[in-house]
Amino acid sequence: MHYELALAVGETARGKASAIAREQTVEIPAGVAAAEVEQLTIGVVSAVAEPSARRARVAIDYPWRELVSDLPQLVNLLYGNISLQRGVRIVGIDWPAELVGQFPGPAFGVAGLRELLGVHNRALLAGALKPVGLGVPALARLAADCARGGLDLIKDDHSLADQRRAPFRDRVLAVAEHVARANRQSGHNCLYVPNLTGPVDSLAERLDDLRAAGVRAAMVAPLLLGLDAVRALAASSGVALVGHPSFAGSLVAPRLGFAPELLFGDLFRIAGCDAVIYPNAGGRFPFTLGDCRRIQHRLLAPLGALRPAFAMVAGGIDAAHLERWLPEYAVDTIFLVGGNLLGRPDVRAAAAELSELVAGAARRKGRR
Amino acid sequence: MHYELALAVGETARGKASAIAREQTVEIPAGVAAAEVEQLTIGVVSAVAEPSARRARVAIDYPWRELVSDLPQLVNLLYGNISLQRGVRIVGIDWPAELVGQFPGPAFGVAGLRELLGVHNRALLAGALKPVGLGVPALARLAADCARGGLDLIKDDHSLADQRRAPFRDRVLAVAEHVARANRQSGHNCLYVPNLTGPVDSLAERLDDLRAAGVRAAMVAPLLLGLDAVRALAASSGVALVGHPSFAGSLVAPRLGFAPELLFGDLFRIAGCDAVIYPNAGGRFPFTLGDCRRIQHRLLAPLGALRPAFAMVAGGIDAAHLERWLPEYAVDTIFLVGGNLLGRPDVRAAAAELSELVAGAARRKGRR
Repeated sequence: MHYELALAVGETARGKASAIAREQTVEIPAGVAAAEVEQLTIGVVSAVAEPSARRARVAIDYPWRELVSDLPQLVNLLYGNISLQRGVRIVGIDWPAELVGQFPGPAFGVAGLRELLGVHNRALLAGALKPVGLGVPALARLAADCARGGLDLIKDDHSLADQRRAPFRDRVLAVAEHVARANRQSGHNCLYVPNLTGPVDSLAERLDDLRAAGVRAAMVAPLLLGLDAVRALAASSGVALVGHPSFAGSLVAPRLGFAPELLFGDLFRIAGCDAVIYPNAGGRFPFTLGDCRRIQHRLLAPLGALRPAFAMVAGGIDAAHLERWLPEYAVDTIFLVGGNLLGRPDVRAAAAELSELVAGAARRKGRR
Repeated sequence: MHYELALAVGETARGKASAIAREQTVEIPAGVAAAEVEQLTIGVVSAVAEPSARRARVAIDYPWRELVSDLPQLVNLLYGNISLQRGVRIVGIDWPAELVGQFPGPAFGVAGLRELLGVHNRALLAGALKPVGLGVPALARLAADCARGGLDLIKDDHSLADQRRAPFRDRVLAVAEHVARANRQSGHNCLYVPNLTGPVDSLAERLDDLRAAGVRAAMVAPLLLGLDAVRALAASSGVALVGHPSFAGSLVAPRLGFAPELLFGDLFRIAGCDAVIYPNAGGRFPFTLGDCRRIQHRLLAPLGALRPAFAMVAGGIDAAHLERWLPEYAVDTIFLVGGNLLGRPDVRAAAAELSELVAGAARRKGRR
């Protein structure tokens, strides 16, 4: 594990690294436990670089076979107690294939999701049903317009939970039906992706509702539900999972937590997300294009035997800007169109315009 | 909801507050949705104070009845998307009693936990079983020594999950048996608090194991398992829950997330923790005594009809320092003794010394 450390006055890189290696494992002062017990489980500082008096880069090797029995405990090892300290950021993880192999990861992945959609060789487009406060009929009409306009996925806004104006079950049934009807007319397989949230002890029932409505995908917020709740859903739900970054942001704030590609790339993928939503550069959130591309890279790069996952970039995706963003990302990208689309007088026509842009770009690329 | 904002160049307090009120609710640009839908669900900026050009304090009222259907959605409203932005910290929440009333909170609370222990009118002492790497017999012996020394609670280290050297089930059975035997000899009711973690779909089975072993309490890390998983356990497990702060630290880092008392006080209590572990001032973590006392205050203060919960302060608790810390906290405090105790040659005698210190302080206070 590679860390970037901010050093306070009086701290040394090696001292701080040793303290982390101890804190995240045995969590007792040196000399308290028998040496053989410490040797078994304590982290070992394997590299120290101190480019300045205030910053350092260190690496720690952990005897993970002795430490990691499950996903919560992996997260605890990565960033449990040290989350409470200052100036510690995880910037690289050399994943042992055997460790990653404990987790099945995405059940669908890029190929499986493309199979569900029947769309290959081009980027995908997704729309969002919002705002919270709309009733079920309005949400269903909006979904039908997006589907008829050729969007590949339509997801609930992440704030649509089980509110009285659009209760989960009614909403899922109505939207799924409208999207299915639009699909029968268009011949496409637009996927409805409801927001699967709510009390964790209601998730099984909500999954039943969702499958009964013919829905094949769901959005989940791993930090709201718990990363391991998402792993459990990926392992057994039978639906494709789209991860949402709600409540995850403090974990990627400057100088703490994780480099964004480790959280939204590696960890969300290990938890089983088939696609991961994150803010596009240049929008309302402070993600750089470098961050965004690195997240995508980690979602697609080899990671044990896990399936690759889609990046689903959100923000700044309208007809005027889509051509700027398309070449910045791999073809296995889902572009999430938000308020821009909903603000257009004819949502269906606006969606069709975007769909044609993506198809046209793919044709041009195919000819080259 | 009260926020402290760090303003970047070009940002105004009112502008940033309005953007938050929109981001956390309708999440679309102004003018996209019908005015009556926005009016229904958007947050309203109710106060703006800008003491300097770089800092502001604002208040936003949310129509929570339209927005909050469950705990994940409450957390999403509090700090969902804005977690991804910069310079936003929640510093106060005026909880509507009706909103809090949606959540049962601690099933035991201070009174219930004291009832389990049979200890009233004094602070409590807890010990920790560690380090990870110890086998089951060594952990069980350590627990017995702590119990015989008069500690009120003995908890697993939060890194003890289901590792091969001390698998959950074997550990719980052996430690519970040793503590029960010590209790029969001493006449006390020392509570063993195993670390209830692991795959969330194994929690029900682990609870069965734990109850079968006669265990009446468990430690949970709300950010590792998910806050709502803890709520579900509090509602139905029948065991008292001790919340651990692992993986929660980025949420209380400076200038973002929550004031510590809102996370470890209000939210952990709403999720149903009967006691909340957090680092004591002056230890390895940057918590001030003010932070620590404010967390305790929120755990004990009126909050809807929720039961008050224990603060369980960790760090710097040894015989030399206990008398310094006792008067800083309310009597309804659990002092968690960590490595200090385990480093002593005779753990039982060292525990007895601490127990006598706490009992003596209570006697002196009773006489005053």
